[in-house]
Amino acid sequence: MTTPATSTDIPHELVERLGADAIVAPAADRSAWETGVRGDRGDAAFIMRPKDTDGVAAAVACCVRHGIPFVPQSGNTGLVGGSTPDASGAQAVLSLERLNRVCEIDVDNRSVRVGAGMRLSQLNARLEAEGLCFPVDLGADPMIGGMVATNTGGARFLRYGDVRANTLGLTVVLPDGEGTVLGLDRALRKDNTGPDWKQLFIGTSGAFGIVTECVLNVEPLPRERATAILVPRDEAATFELLRALETRLGSDLSAFEFMSGNAMRHALAHAPSVRNPFAGGDIPQIALLVEIARTAPAGEGEATLAEVLERTLAAVWEQADEPLTDALFGPPEELWPLRHALSEGVKHAGRLFAFDLAFARADVMRFRAAMTQHLAADWPELEVCDFGHVGDGGIHFNLVCRDRERCQRSGYEQVLRDTVVRHAVEDFHGSFSAEHAIGRANQRYYDHYTPHALKTLADRFGAALGLQASGAVRFGHEHEDD
Amino acid sequence: MTTPATSTDIPHELVERLGADAIVAPAADRSAWETGVRGDRGDAAFIMRPKDTDGVAAAVACCVRHGIPFVPQSGNTGLVGGSTPDASGAQAVLSLERLNRVCEIDVDNRSVRVGAGMRLSQLNARLEAEGLCFPVDLGADPMIGGMVATNTGGARFLRYGDVRANTLGLTVVLPDGEGTVLGLDRALRKDNTGPDWKQLFIGTSGAFGIVTECVLNVEPLPRERATAILVPRDEAATFELLRALETRLGSDLSAFEFMSGNAMRHALAHAPSVRNPFAGGDIPQIALLVEIARTAPAGEGEATLAEVLERTLAAVWEQADEPLTDALFGPPEELWPLRHALSEGVKHAGRLFAFDLAFARADVMRFRAAMTQHLAADWPELEVCDFGHVGDGGIHFNLVCRDRERCQRSGYEQVLRDTVVRHAVEDFHGSFSAEHAIGRANQRYYDHYTPHALKTLADRFGAALGLQASGAVRFGHEHEDD
Repeated sequence: MTTPATSTDIPHELVERLGADAIVAPAADRSAWETGVRGDRGDAAFIMRPKDTDGVAAAVACCVRHGIPFVPQSGNTGLVGGSTPDASGAQAVLSLERLNRVCEIDVDNRSVRVGAGMRLSQLNARLEAEGLCFPVDLGADPMIGGMVATNTGGARFLRYGDVRANTLGLTVVLPDGEGTVLGLDRALRKDNTGPDWKQLFIGTSGAFGIVTECVLNVEPLPRERATAILVPRDEAATFELLRALETRLGSDLSAFEFMSGNAMRHALAHAPSVRNPFAGGDIPQIALLVEIARTAPAGEGEATLAEVLERTLAAVWEQADEPLTDALFGPPEELWPLRHALSEGVKHAGRLFAFDLAFARADVMRFRAAMTQHLAADWPELEVCDFGHVGDGGIHFNLVCRDRERCQRSGYEQVLRDTVVRHAVEDFHGSFSAEHAIGRANQRYYDHYTPHALKTLADRFGAALGLQASGAVRFGHEHEDD
Repeated sequence: MTTPATSTDIPHELVERLGADAIVAPAADRSAWETGVRGDRGDAAFIMRPKDTDGVAAAVACCVRHGIPFVPQSGNTGLVGGSTPDASGAQAVLSLERLNRVCEIDVDNRSVRVGAGMRLSQLNARLEAEGLCFPVDLGADPMIGGMVATNTGGARFLRYGDVRANTLGLTVVLPDGEGTVLGLDRALRKDNTGPDWKQLFIGTSGAFGIVTECVLNVEPLPRERATAILVPRDEAATFELLRALETRLGSDLSAFEFMSGNAMRHALAHAPSVRNPFAGGDIPQIALLVEIARTAPAGEGEATLAEVLERTLAAVWEQADEPLTDALFGPPEELWPLRHALSEGVKHAGRLFAFDLAFARADVMRFRAAMTQHLAADWPELEVCDFGHVGDGGIHFNLVCRDRERCQRSGYEQVLRDTVVRHAVEDFHGSFSAEHAIGRANQRYYDHYTPHALKTLADRFGAALGLQASGAVRFGHEHEDD
């Protein structure tokens, strides 16, 4: 974003503007901001912790003027190295965690104005008192600023869409020499009075500007849910089932999650408290977790959602092509734990190589089949332990290496990553980052796969915003292997 | 977009590239492309009717190189003078109507790739065969390109969102000297691999680029609907009712439309075939049309949607603050005609001044009350005949003048328009264009109310795209009163 600082001295101006208590300098105190959840660890020059938009503007302007590169960070729960500093020791971290006081709920407008440093769980706790929720539902507990910067999707995308679909307004600080504040923050659902500039700050990792406040759409809190785990006839039947359920249930269908047999096996081995729902404990090759939800519980004499789901699946079962071989019913609190245990389960099964891919929906299974075959031939030490939100075309394509020595060889990871991404993007027109954004981990693929015209556009747009970059706009700031 | 042509001669290169049959030159043949639905009438240099994206690119490049300004047009059903040429006779019209052949439905992905010249009704007819629909539901029958250029919302925004929320991809021709084609057209629901550039071509009237093909999200076709007309206790009760229905019905609530007594009176007078649903024919001050919908009809033994709606409204009625004074039930085909007759009804009641406004939801009624009072004092010849999609904060604030002589005085319309827009934007933080975009009619308000930083950004972004504008980017190309 800026050229590296030649000195890590903290400008006097910065200390004066933010207050000494808003700067963390000693190396021993910086660790929490320097370490990401996937173990990426950098070395920061210092940490800035402004408490409001004005403080962020002052910090940004000061850094730009003094040539100090900086990395915006909110909850630091990202998975692509987008919120941690690199190893140079030259980058400052701009933490948004103290921007957590603003939380203005507008019940009539079904919206909330919230600071970038508010945790998702905190926000939902406040909203619950009004019978509302922010519907982007994640396993992690990020802060809102990071959710906007990565445009996360989550497990209920199918029903509610991503962060973009639920953002009404943003307050943004531009990384220019003035710390210009853009107020794109009206709480309107409809407004077509010019370009919707806020869109360019969603999912772009803070490269164009730092989001300090958001106006979000919120939704009535679901009061009843019903779930089932389905075993499809085969991979192709997955989308027959999805179509049948969407047709019958419409927007009551709130989740349609895919779980591979390998991922389930590792989850059940790692988390013995999670119940194995399958008859005789026999884990199938693939399974689906489906959920339906509604905002009001069934009234007297009305069918419960569990009954609706059972009846719907019975009708689907009887279809001529028999897409289902088994359906296991149970309340959400019994069935979701298996889905939620997958991520930790595969992490503990061996060396993990994780990919966050998306495709046109039917291509998820085609990619999966082709890639599994390819890997079995050329990379037999890898086990495909994938799962994901296939209802929206997303899949967390995870590979676990059973030969730790081999997969630590120099170059192994890079060749593997390049191979998987190449198949996803070139052969299946997929996305190399469905919902984790770019960060350091994906900057390489942005550079490689983004058409020249669009990279040029990003640079020119960065220049139009006054970014004093000495070159190309970088969403991840550097290659992971730099 | 470009400087006016000094000659209306048609470049030989253009005729050669598009074919002579794709150019309409004689004045007598041009009328359909020169006249808008609100009576705006211009004078075109000539009409270009390319048949595909390459043709559009050739037409655009040729016009830019020859300095011929042009106006993109698809269905020409817009309401703000965005798709008709001005009176200069210098502007060409770039009609997209022949781009109506591409219509590739992907049932598994619930998406469709469609040309900009496809009519909404044609698209829905094709989709219906697959049990699908494009959910942005309008009274008019525009072409898809214009729907993207204006980011229309419509009557079921509450459930499905606007065109933006349903656009997965776009093919865009840049108005540069090369006619550069940007392929932003992957059919992915999730993709966070850089800025989502397509957003800047949605709702910007073709100023940044001409949309030639779209990949759209489509939805399962609703198979059952139920409707009621509600008479709220007073204006404040409108949002009590909306909250109560959203909480109880969630996303089954598909429309929540506001109708003023004046608008209903004019509609019933103008369209005698429309049934007056009110007891004794007494039209209330305000009424609401609510609709619920689901994709599968009620099964045996299940409550019908009409029963669900009756039961829900009975529960709402019993609330302590008694928000409802009447509820009239009837099937959609009996109740929607009144709502659909409002627009024509007010048009025939006198000289019409129409405003397409949006607010944070509860402000709709506050604005309405304040503005009605203000108009009664200073503009007694005007009658407020408003209606709209208040479930998403939008209102078609229509004023009918009963003193035709007075309202035709010089300057009357401009002062009135400026007054209404000023109150909406300055006093109520509203939008002067909820879903009709900018066009010539609103360029004046874009110029006046857009912060300098954002106007500069638009100009710089236009330059970044290679637009050879000799000055500011204009979404409406000129003032209506120029």
